Amino acid sequence: MSVDAGILHPGFHTRQERVYFEHTDFSGVVYHGRYLDFLEHGRSDYVRLLGIHHNAMADGCYGEPLAFAVYRMEIDFRGAARIDDELTVTTWRGTLKGLRLTFHQRITRGKEVLVDAEVTVVLITPQGHPRRYPKALIEALGVAPASEPGA
Amino acid sequence: MSVDAGILHPGFHTRQERVYFEHTDFSGVVYHGRYLDFLEHGRSDYVRLLGIHHNAMADGCYGEPLAFAVYRMEIDFRGAARIDDELTVTTWRGTLKGLRLTFHQRITRGKEVLVDAEVTVVLITPQGHPRRYPKALIEALGVAPASEPGA
Amino acid sequence: MSVDAGILHPGFHTRQERVYFEHTDFSGVVYHGRYLDFLEHGRSDYVRLLGIHHNAMADGCYGEPLAFAVYRMEIDFRGAARIDDELTVTTWRGTLKGLRLTFHQRITRGKEVLVDAEVTVVLITPQGHPRRYPKALIEALGVAPASEPGA
Amino acid sequence: MSVDAGILHPGFHTRQERVYFEHTDFSGVVYHGRYLDFLEHGRSDYVRLLGIHHNAMADGCYGEPLAFAVYRMEIDFRGAARIDDELTVTTWRGTLKGLRLTFHQRITRGKEVLVDAEVTVVLITPQGHPRRYPKALIEALGVAPASEPGA
Repeated sequence: MSVDAGILHPGFHTRQERVYFEHTDFSGVVYHGRYLDFLEHGRSDYVRLLGIHHNAMADGCYGEPLAFAVYRMEIDFRGAARIDDELTVTTWRGTLKGLRLTFHQRITRGKEVLVDAEVTVVLITPQGHPRRYPKALIEALGVAPASEPGA
Repeated sequence: MSVDAGILHPGFHTRQERVYFEHTDFSGVVYHGRYLDFLEHGRSDYVRLLGIHHNAMADGCYGEPLAFAVYRMEIDFRGAARIDDELTVTTWRGTLKGLRLTFHQRITRGKEVLVDAEVTVVLITPQGHPRRYPKALIEALGVAPASEPGA
Repeated sequence: MSVDAGILHPGFHTRQERVYFEHTDFSGVVYHGRYLDFLEHGRSDYVRLLGIHHNAMADGCYGEPLAFAVYRMEIDFRGAARIDDELTVTTWRGTLKGLRLTFHQRITRGKEVLVDAEVTVVLITPQGHPRRYPKALIEALGVAPASEPGA
Repeated sequence: MSVDAGILHPGFHTRQERVYFEHTDFSGVVYHGRYLDFLEHGRSDYVRLLGIHHNAMADGCYGEPLAFAVYRMEIDFRGAARIDDELTVTTWRGTLKGLRLTFHQRITRGKEVLVDAEVTVVLITPQGHPRRYPKALIEALGVAPASEPGA
């Protein structure tokens, strides 16, 4: 029996989260930094269901040890989650520009949007050097590399 | 559709966790403090399935606003979890002594035991004052209060 | 003896952080979400040295209970911190537009810029309702409210 | 200018912490798991001032890459810290028994004891294998290895 990794839809992924004590702060709602953990779970499970595994990447399955690293985030906090709340994290298929893969992500409680985010991730070696996305990884992600030379 | 809260067995509860980036540290394995979050999820979901909700407790469903607070932990770290690992958290029905409710909890990866813990929780008011477990809460938990006067 | 709250400069604030186990992840560097904690420490200490205290705000020192809440972040991760690193968090005086106060923040290691962020914070009541910044708070912050009606 | 690493006393170490948003939970006080971070900061800074550095250990300064790992904790939560509180973490010199080094640690707010802990740490390789404490490390720590063969 495998741990639930959410649901793969055509072009996007959904995953549920529960709010526990550790996510909240004394103001009574979820601490803003904890949403980043929820977003990371969403991206990780999305790529997991596409056959991409962090441990295999770290072990060099794409030729050398690699890990995803967040390069840029824009995040709008539009509502506040509370203890015991049930949230849905939706992650849309990323777009690749040069070395940068950008996902759009949204956290909702029922029909209410709590968080909207653009998250750009790059590939780095254990020494922190950036790497181009390998072809096999691009194919697994189902993204089309932009034709422009940039980034 | 409700967020998975694990499985209620007679006298215990099981719940699964996945290891994400945020749980690990630079030594390559899960940071010891993060297991406490997994344990808290296990206790919270166990009591949730018994009909006990943190938000209702905070709203005074037992007569005054109450929250669980950890009073003592003994925790043995016997193995190390890694990124992407699938873990099971098992929580056994607590035993009540005076003001103190003690759960035994175990985190396993397959048949391997990674963490064993005894966790004692008390009830506190928002001002931090300890409270006796209300009868309704004791009944929901299915624990027998010890006959001794103590604690 | 008071806990070090950093240094107040004219128009900005600096504060130091050390990288511990808990901040890193298995990729060997600081987990991206942990920088948000460092940024929050910087903003909190900046306003603390201006005489603004979270506990006094929560206790209603501005007329009703209030807390800061992050409304939007843009954050660029330009370098990676490692265990034991010594970092400096610089926070520039915020600018106020309607209900929104925006700080610029930067995390450096020596002369190297690791993180650049724009962080917009609003005031909320315990029920999550937004509030205008009280005059006394604006004066303590040393910001000029924008003349435009907006936000 | 170096980041404050606390004060080295004969046989023990003290270090201060401030409570920020991220440490608290919706019950209004510090989340129990966050105290483990404070304790880890205390142990890390204690050994740092004794000349022991995590990054040098990971780089093999004792012959092979090594890291500390927590093996067992007993922790009593005797009081609750709140936002903005100033805490002192005291760490007493560890005692070594076989592979296990045990520190006593205490977190106080003024004269009030909030947390008491016994923390046992072992040395592991990146593959998670336990290692005997090297002589140079024992000397730096100033602990006497127990004569008994055990552990």
